[in-house]
Amino acid sequence: MSKIKIGIVGYGNLGKGVEMAINQNDDMELVAIFTRRQPEEVNASCKVEHMSDIRKYKDVIDVMLLCGGSATDLPEQGPELASVFNTIDSFDTHAKIPEYFASVDDAASKAGTLSLISTGWDPGLFSLSRVLAESILPEGNEYTFWGKGVSQGHSDAIRRVEGVKNGVQYTVPIDSALEKVRSGSNPEFTTREKHLRVCYVVAEDGADKAKIENEIKTMPNYFADYDTEVNFITEEELKANHSGIPHGGFVIRTGKTGENTKQKIEFSLELGSNPEFTASVLVCYARAIYRLAKEGKTGAVTVFDIPYGLLSPKSPEELRKHYL
Amino acid sequence: MSKIKIGIVGYGNLGKGVEMAINQNDDMELVAIFTRRQPEEVNASCKVEHMSDIRKYKDVIDVMLLCGGSATDLPEQGPELASVFNTIDSFDTHAKIPEYFASVDDAASKAGTLSLISTGWDPGLFSLSRVLAESILPEGNEYTFWGKGVSQGHSDAIRRVEGVKNGVQYTVPIDSALEKVRSGSNPEFTTREKHLRVCYVVAEDGADKAKIENEIKTMPNYFADYDTEVNFITEEELKANHSGIPHGGFVIRTGKTGENTKQKIEFSLELGSNPEFTASVLVCYARAIYRLAKEGKTGAVTVFDIPYGLLSPKSPEELRKHYL
Repeated sequence: MSKIKIGIVGYGNLGKGVEMAINQNDDMELVAIFTRRQPEEVNASCKVEHMSDIRKYKDVIDVMLLCGGSATDLPEQGPELASVFNTIDSFDTHAKIPEYFASVDDAASKAGTLSLISTGWDPGLFSLSRVLAESILPEGNEYTFWGKGVSQGHSDAIRRVEGVKNGVQYTVPIDSALEKVRSGSNPEFTTREKHLRVCYVVAEDGADKAKIENEIKTMPNYFADYDTEVNFITEEELKANHSGIPHGGFVIRTGKTGENTKQKIEFSLELGSNPEFTASVLVCYARAIYRLAKEGKTGAVTVFDIPYGLLSPKSPEELRKHYL
Repeated sequence: MSKIKIGIVGYGNLGKGVEMAINQNDDMELVAIFTRRQPEEVNASCKVEHMSDIRKYKDVIDVMLLCGGSATDLPEQGPELASVFNTIDSFDTHAKIPEYFASVDDAASKAGTLSLISTGWDPGLFSLSRVLAESILPEGNEYTFWGKGVSQGHSDAIRRVEGVKNGVQYTVPIDSALEKVRSGSNPEFTTREKHLRVCYVVAEDGADKAKIENEIKTMPNYFADYDTEVNFITEEELKANHSGIPHGGFVIRTGKTGENTKQKIEFSLELGSNPEFTASVLVCYARAIYRLAKEGKTGAVTVFDIPYGLLSPKSPEELRKHYL
């Protein structure tokens, strides 16, 4: 059986995660990584090409996995590459998804290619959980908690504070809030009641730690609406204990059926590495996109359009026999 | 907008659950319930017809929900009704699913109808969780725990013991085993280490309780391989505290990505009523089957073939905008 030929666009944490995930899937083959850097400066397990050469791979690569960022890379690359390749991306600027979908759909429909946008875990698996749970329990309430995990945006915000040399921020769901939700009591929460923000900060020599702590805790948008914990540590401790990129979260729906019967559906993730997990999601969706494109499907799609059977390397017969 | 017209075949706990679930979905209408009993003896919220009149509804009902049992009802009704209607069932005799699929597929394909077999939560949502989690994390281990919940088969077994007037059995997952799984240590369990069996038994007047307890605990297949707890209670206590049909469970996959990074995916249900929840799953899948049948799809399908977007009453645009 010939393997599904994959290309990676962008070789940051996500791209590297995809490279490793493909190794776990025998029916896939990584053909090349495309980068805006000088290819000879990039050390990877396969051929590395400059972005400007990507069109040469039009008839070689079955699915292109776009691993760039949502802020500037994907809005441009998404539609552009969809006009040449079947693509998959993890576009996660929630407010702009309809607009992004329309531009990728237009490009892919015209080119006769198929593009899956906004997959990963949120958007992605969490989105699927929400739709499934609400469809089953239309009368109910849904809660999403994120973490414990590193928030890149909040870590960046810490590092911009004067006197801060380095820092990492964890978003932590508050256990008592989770328990309230699970009890089915349909609580309403303020922002402060759902998540805690825990910061590990390396201060510059001689910096005013009290001032740093105050500046972080009162920072509007990022920290002011939360209970925030600031821990000063050394650069060595930061490297030793906080260099991973864990994340995760919970999607819980509690609802009622019949005459007031309580029902609860919960989906949760605990991820040792956010980018590696997201990469693994992208890779199994590549299998689905490859199969659907072969059937002639074109345009843009989302996780809501993809049946789970297409994600698995196993045949429909095997799935029915062993997984139902 | 015209509503999706639903019929119910079989009016036990599951059929009653479907009747109530349809009330929670504005885009659906319950047309009739079909029974083998005398229709005038059945008290329901809609028209009740005898099974022998079901074919009269061929052009009236969009999707027929088969709420009979897997042992004797569905093997016969499944293919028979698939030759007239689009159908949905919860056939759950795992070992016979391939054979049942083939017979329903044959009938539906010939008739040009569409039939979803074996939906609910296990088989159903748990099956989906297993396929999703394994597709994302091919290197890993999967564990299913059931409960806390009432097992009908084990409750029946208790009630067959001499001197037992009534009884209920709960399957209870063992917390320490769940925690071992969640830790990612990939434990191997004996049957006894995963689930506990807790029985509430009403003894006949003058019955030998020690003998009953011993007979339950040593019963092969049902109890002998488990730690079993037998509690004697009164008929009143049984009625007051054990007349519900709760259930639920956990599907947990722990796996590795990259260079030994731990990842965990968990799906769980806590159900106040097993039949009401199963009914709610069947009902939202009726929406998907209605839509796919309209698109011209025929034959038998399973949950692995149905994208989640089709389960929701919301449009694809709404789902992309608000749920991704």
